[in-house]
Amino acid sequence: MIKAGIIGGAGYTAGELIRILIYHPEVELDFVYSTSQPGKPVAGIHQDLLGETDLEFSGEINKNTDVVFLCLGHGNSVKFLAENQFSANTKIIDLSTDYRMDGEHEFVYGLPEFNKKKIKKANFIANPGCFATAISLAILPLAKAGLLQNDVHINAVTGATGAGTSLSATTHFTWRDNNFSSYKAFEHQHLNEIGQSLKKLQDNKLPELNFIPNRGNFSRGIHVTAYTKFDGSLEEAKAIFTEAYKDSAFTFLVEEALHLKQVVNTNKCLLKLQKFGDKILITSIIDNLLKGASGQAVENMNLMFGFEESLGLKLKANYF
Amino acid sequence: MIKAGIIGGAGYTAGELIRILIYHPEVELDFVYSTSQPGKPVAGIHQDLLGETDLEFSGEINKNTDVVFLCLGHGNSVKFLAENQFSANTKIIDLSTDYRMDGEHEFVYGLPEFNKKKIKKANFIANPGCFATAISLAILPLAKAGLLQNDVHINAVTGATGAGTSLSATTHFTWRDNNFSSYKAFEHQHLNEIGQSLKKLQDNKLPELNFIPNRGNFSRGIHVTAYTKFDGSLEEAKAIFTEAYKDSAFTFLVEEALHLKQVVNTNKCLLKLQKFGDKILITSIIDNLLKGASGQAVENMNLMFGFEESLGLKLKANYF
Amino acid sequence: MIKAGIIGGAGYTAGELIRILIYHPEVELDFVYSTSQPGKPVAGIHQDLLGETDLEFSGEINKNTDVVFLCLGHGNSVKFLAENQFSANTKIIDLSTDYRMDGEHEFVYGLPEFNKKKIKKANFIANPGCFATAISLAILPLAKAGLLQNDVHINAVTGATGAGTSLSATTHFTWRDNNFSSYKAFEHQHLNEIGQSLKKLQDNKLPELNFIPNRGNFSRGIHVTAYTKFDGSLEEAKAIFTEAYKDSAFTFLVEEALHLKQVVNTNKCLLKLQKFGDKILITSIIDNLLKGASGQAVENMNLMFGFEESLGLKLKANYF
Amino acid sequence: MIKAGIIGGAGYTAGELIRILIYHPEVELDFVYSTSQPGKPVAGIHQDLLGETDLEFSGEINKNTDVVFLCLGHGNSVKFLAENQFSANTKIIDLSTDYRMDGEHEFVYGLPEFNKKKIKKANFIANPGCFATAISLAILPLAKAGLLQNDVHINAVTGATGAGTSLSATTHFTWRDNNFSSYKAFEHQHLNEIGQSLKKLQDNKLPELNFIPNRGNFSRGIHVTAYTKFDGSLEEAKAIFTEAYKDSAFTFLVEEALHLKQVVNTNKCLLKLQKFGDKILITSIIDNLLKGASGQAVENMNLMFGFEESLGLKLKANYF
Repeated sequence: MIKAGIIGGAGYTAGELIRILIYHPEVELDFVYSTSQPGKPVAGIHQDLLGETDLEFSGEINKNTDVVFLCLGHGNSVKFLAENQFSANTKIIDLSTDYRMDGEHEFVYGLPEFNKKKIKKANFIANPGCFATAISLAILPLAKAGLLQNDVHINAVTGATGAGTSLSATTHFTWRDNNFSSYKAFEHQHLNEIGQSLKKLQDNKLPELNFIPNRGNFSRGIHVTAYTKFDGSLEEAKAIFTEAYKDSAFTFLVEEALHLKQVVNTNKCLLKLQKFGDKILITSIIDNLLKGASGQAVENMNLMFGFEESLGLKLKANYF
Repeated sequence: MIKAGIIGGAGYTAGELIRILIYHPEVELDFVYSTSQPGKPVAGIHQDLLGETDLEFSGEINKNTDVVFLCLGHGNSVKFLAENQFSANTKIIDLSTDYRMDGEHEFVYGLPEFNKKKIKKANFIANPGCFATAISLAILPLAKAGLLQNDVHINAVTGATGAGTSLSATTHFTWRDNNFSSYKAFEHQHLNEIGQSLKKLQDNKLPELNFIPNRGNFSRGIHVTAYTKFDGSLEEAKAIFTEAYKDSAFTFLVEEALHLKQVVNTNKCLLKLQKFGDKILITSIIDNLLKGASGQAVENMNLMFGFEESLGLKLKANYF
Repeated sequence: MIKAGIIGGAGYTAGELIRILIYHPEVELDFVYSTSQPGKPVAGIHQDLLGETDLEFSGEINKNTDVVFLCLGHGNSVKFLAENQFSANTKIIDLSTDYRMDGEHEFVYGLPEFNKKKIKKANFIANPGCFATAISLAILPLAKAGLLQNDVHINAVTGATGAGTSLSATTHFTWRDNNFSSYKAFEHQHLNEIGQSLKKLQDNKLPELNFIPNRGNFSRGIHVTAYTKFDGSLEEAKAIFTEAYKDSAFTFLVEEALHLKQVVNTNKCLLKLQKFGDKILITSIIDNLLKGASGQAVENMNLMFGFEESLGLKLKANYF
Repeated sequence: MIKAGIIGGAGYTAGELIRILIYHPEVELDFVYSTSQPGKPVAGIHQDLLGETDLEFSGEINKNTDVVFLCLGHGNSVKFLAENQFSANTKIIDLSTDYRMDGEHEFVYGLPEFNKKKIKKANFIANPGCFATAISLAILPLAKAGLLQNDVHINAVTGATGAGTSLSATTHFTWRDNNFSSYKAFEHQHLNEIGQSLKKLQDNKLPELNFIPNRGNFSRGIHVTAYTKFDGSLEEAKAIFTEAYKDSAFTFLVEEALHLKQVVNTNKCLLKLQKFGDKILITSIIDNLLKGASGQAVENMNLMFGFEESLGLKLKANYF
């Protein structure tokens, strides 16, 4: 049994972490730190927890806790760690973008499918971005096989939780209901993390990544299509993916047609391969808040502490 | 051809008024007054108008315009009219609650089905509330026949546009998507207007109105069920409603089962009657922004200026 | 570890049972019987299970299994049990309406909050209807206290899963999207089960139940408002409900405003009480497929086999 | 005033045609032919028309009507016209795919932005497909300028009405609600019509069109992103599009960010251009049932009969 703390308790990712950790068999949820809500019941904000927990937000941090999850806005993790020091034994999992790019820090990029060995030994994890997770799992196997040499064309759609809890014009119900739109075409910040992973897998060689993100009129999930030229056969591609994910706890190559709700409220990534002429099309789906954020964070925690990778993460889907 | 002005141009009701008035064959849209957006294109806010109009918000008011619509927050119409004077010939239609209750003012309650004669002669109209419209049209015929003597049990659900354009927790997409909730049970402010109409129709006698409003996870429309004890037969009830609405341009008694989208994006009210034991059940549906606000405002304008009641209001439904 | 079988594997309730039972720590899912799909993978129908289970539908029944869940259409459970005999040790939980009304059978009505003792000793359970569960939990405490003497006015809205997997005009996406409608007013079949429970609790006395069900444009969940005359204070009402649910594993009285998504994808029922004049208003929310069907079925199984009531039912909500 | 008939009256496109034509100032809706519903009220199927029209489906065809719209399933228009002959003066507008590809017939492809002269003189129109309309309007201006030489990468999402009124697994509300999926990648049948238009505009030269269609969880509308290499500047591209659409009644190039609801329930196509490195990104939005089907059919009718192009098509958007 380990003790876990959460820094920044009011957002979507903190909520999902709390939901998972209160029933995780090897975790005691030690504290949920919130500067704005200290003393208030956690179920007052995350109201699906009414009746299930008396936990209150804490105004204080236990610096000796075994693991701490940072659920802070992008840019604020660096700041928080500069101002707060944890014990040498405390492992840190950061859900922001702050430590995802290599640099003068010890954070390991927490994509278990490609980094499991390092994660198991790590004390600090930079948890991948949601789009980055869905897209990386779609294209890294080809890169690992040295076969991602041509332009990649990626289109993805995310739910409204991807935009965070703050109110904005594009998260107003009357705007988003029955609506669809693109944003940040070719310029989404997650391209950096994906590129970094690609370069490591194929000798610094980075094909052009053309990425158009879209806003869907649903709450959860990311659906990705990615295609590129691929000389091999469909069977060769399937063999590459099967090999890449043979030890994977949550990422599966399937034959069935994919649709987003197959993974909503689970930590899974489902992948499907199709070949059209000289192109390979990869479809990839995840829940942006679970495999794309809090679920993967707990998966990383499980690996860091030697627990079974899927412990506490066998979640019932919300299939309809 | 008359000239029309709109005061307060950024909200939902102003948007709907603009959409209707730019194609109204007897109206020239003279100005849309906005203190926050003067000089900016109207289509920058109401973006479905892109390509259709070059109209800009105005920082000035034409005090000699033929008709002015007040689309201000509740409480602000009184204030605005205290600070701004229009010509003696300018007719005013107020969409707020400010003048709906009788008092020391000359505003006529603008429910054409029950007040058509007065509306035709009026210079000032208090446009009814959205719930008040849907509920009044459901129960006033019985009151007019002196037969609404017992407790009335009313349940209604409204779309998110009913809450206005401002961002709030309950209009955030991730909250409202696939959600449902009640609010202001037994205490909704529209009960006052309904009660006032009832009392006028049946000698000051007001049965108990039990009203539970609900928030639906859709953008537009109000669906009402109302039931009460009724000694007569279903046929007698139908005769009463048929008589009450025989000259109605937009309110129809139908035999078919009702569902909300039959009226979305139209100015219609559809009503259905059923009898169960000693009770009569009335179902009533309207579009909250049209028959419940801007459409009815234009209907009132048509009556005030002697135009055909439905002029400019034969709108294509958004049935699916 | 007990063995469980499911009869009728393709519908919503069977799917939810499978999702729960494959991770239930005391259950081995022995077979999912389907006459139409034998030999086909369960994950081919319940496609959120892709990657999680290799289970196949079975064309045969193990008559010695410990517990069997009947997920058949209404009317078909009686027929099935006439044609198929299980061992004397096999417990049966029927999710249809077939055995909910008392009669010449040994089935116990499986509403744990009011029938826990009998359920623990039962071999045959009639699992309550979804509306019946949500409404009963809202009003039975008053009946138990002998205080439900006056007319009750009930309005409830259910998601599209309430209509089953078969395709129909009112479950077509283009019809239901952004729509709302009522059906079966005053005549819903669940009134019988509710009435039966009420009569048992208060000496055969049955107040008039006025019930209007509605179809919402969401997939899961039931939201109920029910009000009646109540002479006591709000505090007295709260005391009655607190007492009624003091041993309840999933039903909680809360102070917070309720909205449906607080319980979606959980087995909980949340209740809120308000007093207006001489009336008490009770709001009640459940997930129609869990507390309203498969979750409650597993809750009953847990009680019948002496497991902790919430075993395998600590589900992560799908709060947004 | 001309007389119009509709063949096949129960589907979405017929419904939209009826909604438009009953208020079109130059059209008398002569008959709506239905073999399955003769004698039944049109408002019984298209229930938003309750109260507005007493029109009944007809079991007979007036062969001398001025214009007839064929709203039949793909493949059935050819069959219908083989079995039914109209007068020499009757103009025919076919909404199916049957006559969109050039061949041994006299049908003119009815995309007014690129074919207006021919349409004005035509007696027979093949109305374009919905995806084909949205994509063609996005890319044909470059082709017309001879500048569409490189691979084009197209991603589009359509609402559930795109799949027609028939019930299917992917149009069931519980499947589609909050869901997203791709289908027919690289192989959608509309690629043929688009290719045919492209080849005509640039000397038979056809760049590779990579097209991934998607199913969105909304009812109406198509949102397209298309990008390709383009050597010119953004300003040059804008000049090309501005020139291409300078006489267009419904297609507009705008500077604002696009989102689908800007065009829902209108006959407009809005386009936006962006340049990223050596690529041009074109976003295009239409209502699949209006500009993508029935609205464009009426637009073609207006042109064929010498009416103003937008007559009867100044529709109020359903912006929220």
